[in-house]
Amino acid sequence: MKKIISLHPLRGIIIYFNPPQILAITFLFLILIGTLLLKVPTATYEPISWLDAWFTATSAITVTGLVVVDTGSTYTLFGEIVIMFLMQIGGLGLMTFSVLILMMMRKKIGLRQRLLTQESLNLNQTSLGGLLRLVKLLFIFSITIEAIAFLCLSFKWVPEFGWSDGLNQSLFHSISAFNNAGFSLWSDSLSQYVGDPLVNIVITGLFITGGLGFTVLVDIWDKKGFQKLSLHSKLMLSGTLVINIIALFVLFFLEYGNPETIGNLSFVDKLWGSYFQAVTPRTAGFNSLDITEMTVPSILLMMLLMFIGAGSGSTGSGIKVTTFVVMLLATASFLRGKSETTAFKRTIKLHIIIRALSIMMISISLIFLAIFILTITERAPFLSIAFEVISAFGTVGISMGLTGDLTTIGKIVIMIMMFIGRIGPLTMAFVFAKRRQSSVRYPEEDVFTG
Amino acid sequence: MKKIISLHPLRGIIIYFNPPQILAITFLFLILIGTLLLKVPTATYEPISWLDAWFTATSAITVTGLVVVDTGSTYTLFGEIVIMFLMQIGGLGLMTFSVLILMMMRKKIGLRQRLLTQESLNLNQTSLGGLLRLVKLLFIFSITIEAIAFLCLSFKWVPEFGWSDGLNQSLFHSISAFNNAGFSLWSDSLSQYVGDPLVNIVITGLFITGGLGFTVLVDIWDKKGFQKLSLHSKLMLSGTLVINIIALFVLFFLEYGNPETIGNLSFVDKLWGSYFQAVTPRTAGFNSLDITEMTVPSILLMMLLMFIGAGSGSTGSGIKVTTFVVMLLATASFLRGKSETTAFKRTIKLHIIIRALSIMMISISLIFLAIFILTITERAPFLSIAFEVISAFGTVGISMGLTGDLTTIGKIVIMIMMFIGRIGPLTMAFVFAKRRQSSVRYPEEDVFTG
Ligand SMILES: [K+]
Ligand SMILES: [K+]
Repeated sequence: MKKIISLHPLRGIIIYFNPPQILAITFLFLILIGTLLLKVPTATYEPISWLDAWFTATSAITVTGLVVVDTGSTYTLFGEIVIMFLMQIGGLGLMTFSVLILMMMRKKIGLRQRLLTQESLNLNQTSLGGLLRLVKLLFIFSITIEAIAFLCLSFKWVPEFGWSDGLNQSLFHSISAFNNAGFSLWSDSLSQYVGDPLVNIVITGLFITGGLGFTVLVDIWDKKGFQKLSLHSKLMLSGTLVINIIALFVLFFLEYGNPETIGNLSFVDKLWGSYFQAVTPRTAGFNSLDITEMTVPSILLMMLLMFIGAGSGSTGSGIKVTTFVVMLLATASFLRGKSETTAFKRTIKLHIIIRALSIMMISISLIFLAIFILTITERAPFLSIAFEVISAFGTVGISMGLTGDLTTIGKIVIMIMMFIGRIGPLTMAFVFAKRRQSSVRYPEEDVFTG
Repeated sequence: MKKIISLHPLRGIIIYFNPPQILAITFLFLILIGTLLLKVPTATYEPISWLDAWFTATSAITVTGLVVVDTGSTYTLFGEIVIMFLMQIGGLGLMTFSVLILMMMRKKIGLRQRLLTQESLNLNQTSLGGLLRLVKLLFIFSITIEAIAFLCLSFKWVPEFGWSDGLNQSLFHSISAFNNAGFSLWSDSLSQYVGDPLVNIVITGLFITGGLGFTVLVDIWDKKGFQKLSLHSKLMLSGTLVINIIALFVLFFLEYGNPETIGNLSFVDKLWGSYFQAVTPRTAGFNSLDITEMTVPSILLMMLLMFIGAGSGSTGSGIKVTTFVVMLLATASFLRGKSETTAFKRTIKLHIIIRALSIMMISISLIFLAIFILTITERAPFLSIAFEVISAFGTVGISMGLTGDLTTIGKIVIMIMMFIGRIGPLTMAFVFAKRRQSSVRYPEEDVFTG
């Protein structure tokens, strides 16, 4: 045992803590580093408070994009580079990191520990070769996508802002978009480009791709055909498509006559605006419309979209599209009197359904608790509070304007929500949960519900 | 076949429709009768609109208590008696009715139909003898409880209002409270009696008893000892106790310094006020404090309580205490890595957990949809709208003041929510769901969630 620890200094830590705990500790450590770097005098034009640096680091690492200070006017180029790195680590890094933990553990870990790791990190690759390939593909793929987007955006922004600023803008927004971070160097996010096809397509293309999750991307790369895809990829792709289309048309209809958003735009620009605002709440967090001016039903729809979020093992958060779809499918099966939940000619395991139920319950409870606390500490309309909390939980980053006015307790609650939202409500629960397999079996008995 | 129909004219209907459909049709029929009776000129001092009569009838039958016109000043004694009957039928009647359907079906119904009936009506008594005994106990018990309460309240209200009015008030509020209807003859509900021990104890005693559900009451009557009770009764009793105690202390803490509610009351009256307002949202609907003046976190807590509701097969609605408890237990078991959900040394069937999940999903979806529609049609703060919808769904009847100002579409949406809330979201879904057992079995495949 002693010998093993000397060979692999990290193994001791890995054996002592369980993977969810290691993940949480690493994230906390990264937030600390980020806070220190952003507090360095050369990072900002004017000194910012420790709390604001802490909040910005948390928001960047968790790829949320909620800001208490305006990014473009507060941070120097050095500060912006720090934020870029934090977003890249928080988005792309989370997945890689999970894979690396599994690799370091190799086969030395017991079955229970392995099951727990898979449970909490959503990894299905047990062979080392599969893992290494995944990490490699993941890096190559991400960097390629970001580079292509960087080039496309440069064609737009270099002529507009000159070489230095144009390239900086393009790089920053490429990284921010692919990692679903939602940070922008403009205080009104992408509102200037509401009808610009290039910006709309590149930015949404980036965050939708990043939000699908790497297992889906690798699956598409390998299989080249919808029918051959795994059940997970099929559910994720079809779910994303259906949700986006519904959201697009509902927002278009709700905002059509609203002069503060798309009411005064041309028909085509109305569509672009609706499209962008329909896809960004899951969980990119840019905005091309003024959210505070949107109608209340639109706000409500966006809250639902933020809650659902993106894909498992992606750069996005929320309860995840598949969790939502599995719950819907299970309900539909129950109503039809079917004993099994099926999709695309495959049966969804009961264990997966109970897992989805747990994610849902934990998420709703956390959101309720956070809103409850903020209604005590903040002087703001209920809807702004609810919107802010769900935006933090889904690491979305759009806001009805509350972020800058938050009290200290309010900021801390929002930071905790971003943190839990990013590492996942279930992973967070596993950090604290004592797992024990009871060998006692009790007889079944009926309970009346509903 | 022809002979059977001539013997039992109702049997044809019973065979053609499934029980959830019969239940829904009966309720619609009763609402129609109620509307006609309340529209009779002698029922009101001033003529009311058809819509308002319809709304009142729906509110009374579904034991909700939301009112568009003030009950005491609008309806004559005849009108009040009609409302009393509607409440009694809607509360006590729902359970009896379910039992009667089962009796008429006797053993002529197939196993699938029988299973569906039990599924949707939550009845576990399959023998005719058991059913008859249940109906008898149910009637005797209800009438006895209501009679005792009527006497107690008369001691308070006859000296205060004289014989005629005092007896009328006592009878009306006894029936309204036991059936969790929440109708009051005073426009400020029971606010005058915020610190009155007799009114507090009798009224809350009535609606808490009525809200436990008849199976629990019969179980307590038969067993006389907590350990001997069924799992359902144990979960129901312990769940109710824990929820009520938590709600009492949280409301006491939140409202302690609020001069518009309990801030200016004596310490003991503060406790009475908090107690009453803690137990009434599940799903009695009286109030002894001014709800519009309560703090936002209190409003939020009451919304949660209204959503949870009372017991299965009781005079209350909501998703039901057991549904909520089962979901919590299932989540806790999952986090601990246990493959089975247990409580009080009994295992809760997976089927029951999936059932609870379905109730939760349908309920949340319906509530979301109704709030969404009302944010389009109504000009009111978001919180008032959300509160009104959840109050209607839980057939609670407390309001932040929106009911009287609702548009026609708004009133219809709220009526639909009361209706679904009362017959149960799952029963409602079964009215439309086509049930088919697929014989095709598909292989299992993993889906990543959360
Ligand atoms: K984001
Ligand atoms: K009620």
